[in-house]
Amino acid sequence: MNVKISIDAMGGDFGPSVTMEAVIRALSHHSDVTALVFGDRSALQDCIDKTLSPSIVSRLELCHCASQVDCHDKPSFAVRSKQDSSMALALTSLKEGKAEACVSAGNTGVLMALSLFILGTLPGISRPAICAEIPTDNGNKLMLDLGANVDCSADQLYQFAVLGSHTANLALEIDNPTLRLLNVGLEAGKGNNLVQATAEMLEADESLNYQGFIEGDGIFQGLADVIVCDGFSGNVALKASEGVARHIYQKLPALSADFKGGLAELKASIQPSLFNGAYLLGINGVVVKSHGGADVQGFANALERAINAARHQLPSALSPLLAQNNH
Amino acid sequence: MNVKISIDAMGGDFGPSVTMEAVIRALSHHSDVTALVFGDRSALQDCIDKTLSPSIVSRLELCHCASQVDCHDKPSFAVRSKQDSSMALALTSLKEGKAEACVSAGNTGVLMALSLFILGTLPGISRPAICAEIPTDNGNKLMLDLGANVDCSADQLYQFAVLGSHTANLALEIDNPTLRLLNVGLEAGKGNNLVQATAEMLEADESLNYQGFIEGDGIFQGLADVIVCDGFSGNVALKASEGVARHIYQKLPALSADFKGGLAELKASIQPSLFNGAYLLGINGVVVKSHGGADVQGFANALERAINAARHQLPSALSPLLAQNNH
Repeated sequence: MNVKISIDAMGGDFGPSVTMEAVIRALSHHSDVTALVFGDRSALQDCIDKTLSPSIVSRLELCHCASQVDCHDKPSFAVRSKQDSSMALALTSLKEGKAEACVSAGNTGVLMALSLFILGTLPGISRPAICAEIPTDNGNKLMLDLGANVDCSADQLYQFAVLGSHTANLALEIDNPTLRLLNVGLEAGKGNNLVQATAEMLEADESLNYQGFIEGDGIFQGLADVIVCDGFSGNVALKASEGVARHIYQKLPALSADFKGGLAELKASIQPSLFNGAYLLGINGVVVKSHGGADVQGFANALERAINAARHQLPSALSPLLAQNNH
Repeated sequence: MNVKISIDAMGGDFGPSVTMEAVIRALSHHSDVTALVFGDRSALQDCIDKTLSPSIVSRLELCHCASQVDCHDKPSFAVRSKQDSSMALALTSLKEGKAEACVSAGNTGVLMALSLFILGTLPGISRPAICAEIPTDNGNKLMLDLGANVDCSADQLYQFAVLGSHTANLALEIDNPTLRLLNVGLEAGKGNNLVQATAEMLEADESLNYQGFIEGDGIFQGLADVIVCDGFSGNVALKASEGVARHIYQKLPALSADFKGGLAELKASIQPSLFNGAYLLGINGVVVKSHGGADVQGFANALERAINAARHQLPSALSPLLAQNNH
């Protein structure tokens, strides 16, 4: 199945030197993928080696853009003044049906604002959420929101639960995905007012496979297919986890003399770049956000998420399901 | 300096078999420490080997209790009906000046409620916080609240900041400790309403060494001496971190054939039991909470925290400092 993805190549701390190499890597892995790459044409061309295989070059379309989003741009400013940026034009290509998924490592707030402005939201969704695919002992799982909404209502968390459940079903191919609400304890009475009000709504919806609460240490055990939380605590939990993984990962290279199978495997499994690539879920289009500081492998991981979501025809498969839910 | 600590030996998933062994280990490390151990006398005595050195036996005072707090007891029920429990009597020994610090692995909510009822709070503190000593690249740091207050006001977070700063100064011997507020970003405008209101209060107090925000991945880098957060996101962050550390730690034993210095050191540094032992800060007495599932090393770590706090004469050194702060 042919897939077209659009890439904002100018985003992130390293720009085209990282994003272009990751795109070329993705194209060499997937012979049915075409990339529309948005950015400064000469900067992009500098990253293409003359020896690159013609079968890859033919699937690499460079689209020149006059500007780019800056990491300090305010969302409102960008919506007004950065419509000719690589980020805005990559999103516009989705809107125009020229690509099926878009990836950017640029400013998160601006990416959310431009996505809302250019693509809008899915039916019944008031605010999109940042949703990561988390590698656990028990396969990949979804967790949302991870920072788009730092002051949430129970209604919003309920919408995230519906969105997350359908996405786990469609993109991760999990039947009747289990759903849990992040909390400070497992017993029914635990938690803050927001969690209590949300639990009541989730229990009342029989279309959801809601299984109750989950604590922070259950996330990486894979105790739920979908974990729902407000954007503040979700962001803090994921960043703390990444921090611990990075802390340990950075100590491992010094042990390379000891590298046997088991240790190399462990090192691979806690690689921070594996966490990279989060969906802006609820946007009417597949938009994947990469960390600004991602390396080539990290950005390539974000591209894999986008390709997978496009293959599963999100969000067009999501829209009718959301329309059925009474929310 | 002689120190007396009281221990609720019946708390935790394993009771005296873990707590007594940890107490004996602490007494053998510290020849100036005496332990008042509260619990079922015969269960406690069963854990004392006849070959135990008389110099340790002489510093081990067993105090028989008719009941114990159950993990399912509601705080209000325990305050009414469990005044003769090992937990309540261990706390009462603090109140009566018979011990300088108390450790329990029992039910957190009940420990907080009984501590408030029996010991009360320090001057100017409306609600105590759970405060952990976090091992980082950069030495041990303090983080609070980790779950006592899941719906916080800015006033409460401000009180936690004052408490944490004085405690880092007194117990960790850090001059003018740096203070940061946990948030989803570092820029001034980031975060939810609570964080914004708290930041304003912290900036206005020149007696605090407030340095702005910190993200989840900064916690284990040791970027601040004291990290303040609401109990919901703090609990989630710490448990997620423990989960990742445990996840990785559990994979390491299979590699024991490769054990060289570096790997053994890494294994020791990410040991989950090192996280164990949190202060109930703001209580008028040193109360340390151990994880219910702590092993001997974990409970011993909690005892070390209590002994250290007692040596630094918390909270009697804290009270006059708090009284000076205008809050």
